Amino acid sequence: MITLDLTLPDTRYPIHIGHGLLDQVELILPHLPIPQVAIVTNDVVAPLYLERLTRQLESHGVHCIPVILPDGEAHKNWQTLNLIFDALLGANAERKTTLIALGGGVIGDMTGFAAACYQRGAPFIQIPTTLLAQVDSSVGGKTAINHPLGKNMIGAFYQPKLVLADMDLLATLPERELSAGIAEVIKYGLLGDADFLAWLEANMDKLRARDPAALQYAVRRSCEMKAEIVGQDEKEQGVRALLNLGHTFGHAIEAGLGYGHWLHGEAVGAGMVLAAAASQALGWLSAEDVQRVVTLIDAAGLPVRSPDFGVDEWMRHMGHDKKVESGVIRFILLKQLGQAVIQPGLPPALLDTLFSGPHIDATIPH
Amino acid sequence: MITLDLTLPDTRYPIHIGHGLLDQVELILPHLPIPQVAIVTNDVVAPLYLERLTRQLESHGVHCIPVILPDGEAHKNWQTLNLIFDALLGANAERKTTLIALGGGVIGDMTGFAAACYQRGAPFIQIPTTLLAQVDSSVGGKTAINHPLGKNMIGAFYQPKLVLADMDLLATLPERELSAGIAEVIKYGLLGDADFLAWLEANMDKLRARDPAALQYAVRRSCEMKAEIVGQDEKEQGVRALLNLGHTFGHAIEAGLGYGHWLHGEAVGAGMVLAAAASQALGWLSAEDVQRVVTLIDAAGLPVRSPDFGVDEWMRHMGHDKKVESGVIRFILLKQLGQAVIQPGLPPALLDTLFSGPHIDATIPH
Repeated sequence: MITLDLTLPDTRYPIHIGHGLLDQVELILPHLPIPQVAIVTNDVVAPLYLERLTRQLESHGVHCIPVILPDGEAHKNWQTLNLIFDALLGANAERKTTLIALGGGVIGDMTGFAAACYQRGAPFIQIPTTLLAQVDSSVGGKTAINHPLGKNMIGAFYQPKLVLADMDLLATLPERELSAGIAEVIKYGLLGDADFLAWLEANMDKLRARDPAALQYAVRRSCEMKAEIVGQDEKEQGVRALLNLGHTFGHAIEAGLGYGHWLHGEAVGAGMVLAAAASQALGWLSAEDVQRVVTLIDAAGLPVRSPDFGVDEWMRHMGHDKKVESGVIRFILLKQLGQAVIQPGLPPALLDTLFSGPHIDATIPH
Repeated sequence: MITLDLTLPDTRYPIHIGHGLLDQVELILPHLPIPQVAIVTNDVVAPLYLERLTRQLESHGVHCIPVILPDGEAHKNWQTLNLIFDALLGANAERKTTLIALGGGVIGDMTGFAAACYQRGAPFIQIPTTLLAQVDSSVGGKTAINHPLGKNMIGAFYQPKLVLADMDLLATLPERELSAGIAEVIKYGLLGDADFLAWLEANMDKLRARDPAALQYAVRRSCEMKAEIVGQDEKEQGVRALLNLGHTFGHAIEAGLGYGHWLHGEAVGAGMVLAAAASQALGWLSAEDVQRVVTLIDAAGLPVRSPDFGVDEWMRHMGHDKKVESGVIRFILLKQLGQAVIQPGLPPALLDTLFSGPHIDATIPH
């Protein structure tokens, strides 16, 4: 097991990365202010891991309230969030009851937001069960639900007390979810570490074959980069926006297709291709650079072409992005491979070309 | 105009108290990061003040998004909160759009919570239009909505950039709302300032007659006490709990009768009588002390007797209080008039007597 620390002005918490951590309940116990937890999970993860975690905690005298939500991004909304509040209040959960998120990004985001709001703030712990959640969404305290008019529009910055990334949980992850997680791993290479990008090109086969050492290295390097960036800019006043590489386009894809049709990581994969293409149009990347991006994302098992919404619908969906300032969309683009920058606005002609160009696929139904 | 400062570890903001402040738009303008605001109000306040505020702001080039909600505590829920999000997203409001709460406690709490959650945190300003909101809920950053199983159960600590308490707005306040606000004013005297309590006994007639000087003094002294306590303990780890004098009982009354039947201040009034009676049962207050409390609350035009739920229902509703720790209800009681303390738990026999005693009125329908 290796442990990273995320250090913020007001708090600091450990990110444990390793094998067999779900059974090491002694990592969790010191973080519980009272011996009561609510374990929030979904109907896919619950049969795999809920009983195991519950048994461990209860053997140490911790009362566990199970909260099992329907699976999927389509359920990342107020109705589902309210099921958490109903369960907490129904079980007389207190302000010091710890919420444990046992699941992927959707469970982590919703549980974190529920913890942020329950009695104005209850403690919470992240146990991410997908690669995407381990490398990205479980770290850094962004929590949210979706609104029909925009993804993650309702939420809070609210930090967990602990992140427990158990590599063994990835064994049960469907192929498609694994690829979606690799999208966020590629993001770190593209935005800030050309060496890591080269490592990913060389090791993509191992990652997809779930080689334990390769997976642990990818999670570790991703969490290191995330912890460093979030430590500099918790509330996304500046550099943290770079972590949204591919996400402005990706969120538009998710909203345009309807949440849940593509996985978040899939939309981010295709979104990063558009970011690379836009960067080429600005003269920052070469055609070869863009081809490297396309090849790597394709090798990860991710879509490299985006739906053909037409430029107006693209702009409308991107207009709800949280990075919009004074009406200007702040795009995250690439000065070079391994160096992302914030680009406020793009020329309309460039956008017209981008959204009708070779990285758009008119055959994707929407 | 007088200005108090609320100083917290991370922030500091002014509370302006005076006459004619709604027209002094120069107090607001420096706090807007971009010239766009959403003015959240209700269908009672909107016809009185919305156009006036909008005209002032627009004459200085500020774009105003009006959001008019249904009035009343019964609407302090997710459905109504979502109307704010719908309006914000429908108008492409950004992360730096300022939400202005123009209304009473319900509007302030909901607008603050919407601001806390919108894009993970937008700026907000409080313009309280009721006495209750001016002396209590607009100051200190407690925001929330109700859940069917408990009041203010879903919320956030989220501070405004500015509080503008315009005494002139109280001219249109219904009698019953004025009394409800006086309940919170009395609370400050009871919990921490015996001199202020004596002043209230001597000046209750003036307050109810809306004497401008008396009102301004009551708002100022209340806000001073609130700012001092919140400055010591923003997140209610300790002393801030004293501000809940009368509220554990009061919240149970509101939940038991259904939100909106009694005004919050009315429930707090009757709740303070129960707190005084419980304090007498512990030997802390004399019968004369309790009679002083009853007389003052009655003189304020507030109910002094609570509904007869029976002890089990009382306990059930109080069990959802946010001050419950490890199953023990932390009551706020009075060591003496002018000095509140936290009392963890009360003997069952005392509670039996309290909830069937002279301060309970079986004729109140529920």
